[in-house]
Amino acid sequence: MKGEKYFYNFLWEAAGMIRIGIDVGGTDIKVGAVSRDGKLLGCLSAPTGADRPFEAVVADMAQGVDRLLKQMGLPRSEVSMIGLGLPGAVDPARGAAVNCTNLGWLDVPVRDEMNRYFDCPVLLENDANAAAIAENRVGASAGCRSSVIITLGTGVGSAILFGGKPWPGHHGMAGEIGHTVLVPGGLHCNCGRSGCAERYCSATALAAQGRQACLMYGDNGMLRMADGDPSKITAKIVIDAAKAGDRAALAVFNGFVRHLAAMVDTVISFIDPEIVVLGGGVSRAGSFLLDAVKANIPPCDMGQPRPLSRIELAALGNEAGMIGATMLEP
Amino acid sequence: MKGEKYFYNFLWEAAGMIRIGIDVGGTDIKVGAVSRDGKLLGCLSAPTGADRPFEAVVADMAQGVDRLLKQMGLPRSEVSMIGLGLPGAVDPARGAAVNCTNLGWLDVPVRDEMNRYFDCPVLLENDANAAAIAENRVGASAGCRSSVIITLGTGVGSAILFGGKPWPGHHGMAGEIGHTVLVPGGLHCNCGRSGCAERYCSATALAAQGRQACLMYGDNGMLRMADGDPSKITAKIVIDAAKAGDRAALAVFNGFVRHLAAMVDTVISFIDPEIVVLGGGVSRAGSFLLDAVKANIPPCDMGQPRPLSRIELAALGNEAGMIGATMLEP
Repeated sequence: MKGEKYFYNFLWEAAGMIRIGIDVGGTDIKVGAVSRDGKLLGCLSAPTGADRPFEAVVADMAQGVDRLLKQMGLPRSEVSMIGLGLPGAVDPARGAAVNCTNLGWLDVPVRDEMNRYFDCPVLLENDANAAAIAENRVGASAGCRSSVIITLGTGVGSAILFGGKPWPGHHGMAGEIGHTVLVPGGLHCNCGRSGCAERYCSATALAAQGRQACLMYGDNGMLRMADGDPSKITAKIVIDAAKAGDRAALAVFNGFVRHLAAMVDTVISFIDPEIVVLGGGVSRAGSFLLDAVKANIPPCDMGQPRPLSRIELAALGNEAGMIGATMLEP
Repeated sequence: MKGEKYFYNFLWEAAGMIRIGIDVGGTDIKVGAVSRDGKLLGCLSAPTGADRPFEAVVADMAQGVDRLLKQMGLPRSEVSMIGLGLPGAVDPARGAAVNCTNLGWLDVPVRDEMNRYFDCPVLLENDANAAAIAENRVGASAGCRSSVIITLGTGVGSAILFGGKPWPGHHGMAGEIGHTVLVPGGLHCNCGRSGCAERYCSATALAAQGRQACLMYGDNGMLRMADGDPSKITAKIVIDAAKAGDRAALAVFNGFVRHLAAMVDTVISFIDPEIVVLGGGVSRAGSFLLDAVKANIPPCDMGQPRPLSRIELAALGNEAGMIGATMLEP
């Protein structure tokens, strides 16, 4: 009897041992094997080939899972679930990608297609939400009851979590903080507005601001790091030059931080979450960025110290999407 | 047996027939008797006298309830609960006013004090949240699963409701949309920031904008409505003159609406609620305001029509706070 119980326990453990998280981007598909406590055990990536029919992309995803399992010496039977993080609006209940612009997917039945290859549960979520779930479970905002995660990458996105669950919005459109107006009448944005946060707080914006500064400052640290070619200035170069004390780069960085802090301040005043987490490429600037943002958040309201949401850097980096996808619940 | 059952039902009905909602403002206390389905059956108001000790204010509130009951010919036993809407941060669990600046209340045990006069359940909530609950139950956003209610009065406040419940924020500070920066480097605000939404979208701001316009336009409709005294121009005068087609008033109104629409657009992009409700004094401008705001919300994102939150005017006016206070739950 006792042996039988252990046997069943072993079976149960084995069946639930590995979860697969797939982070589907416009450029790459990242496939990860994740333990039940959120540790990434192995991963691989492959080009998305987003110009192909979605069936071909899903077939590649399934093939990627098989390849990863083979590398890890695991049978398919050890996969207890597959979670997908998709770049756009999704309908988790129907298992469908509603609108993923970068993939050209409009109302695509991703779950059913994936179930043609794997008969385990397949769950899906918006990629930013998946990453936020991971940060909220095992990352920067672990254990926080409310959090807003802002991703500073090519664009600016965000996820709002209450009780560990993303708030999707009534139309599945919440979190579009990149397209809230930060500077009325400011820079034109692809969305149609002018002065969107994305045009001031993204990695793309930081790089552009660095390039523009070269017109004013002439020779400077950013330009030297870019081999004299302003078009090669990246967000990382601006940050590295600013860290090194370059005057032009510091001017750019300080202006960038003021805009970013204004956005964070708005989130805090409006939502008052327990924590605001800064992620995406720009967040790799580390405490240099974090300290500067914190210093630009008004510490008082009406002269009284205000209780402030914590502000932290994301902890899981590019792996957050894969890890969070394995934490989805039906 | 059958008679007994009816008897108990009757008792039950009687005991739950009247709820008392008290909206405590810096100037007036409004006391209302509300039916279980949210109808205001009777009300009265009295000066708050906020410069007195809180015990005196609560004593007046209790006296107000007794006076109202007497007017309505009802015994105290018909009061099933008393709900309080307080102007500031509250802790509903402890039954305390944490910080109500306009009343000078810092960590005041309001519930216990009220229970010295009435032994029925006493519940409390922030006044804007109470008003939002009423709108969400029997007003403009009735039945909506998510809503943001923006109050355009002396200042600008807001309440965010999910599933009919206000999101209080981690520190009880959510909804301070009036102190999110709408115009970087803009008008100085008492909170310490510059360019706060409150300085552009409140009734106070609209009146100030009307007065300023008189410096540019000379004789105009607003000035005539204010008997030639610019200092007498109110938000209502600006709106009335704009409705009458006055050129100066229209210029002011259109500028006001552009700022207000930018604030609403930010709420929609970030939260994507089912509905945004505009309340407070300015909302009495009616469809003249509502249509203008809607016309200033970008209908597309990236050239695609976007699914938009509904935008509506508050339906319950000044009674919302009293009615909502009676809908509080322990």
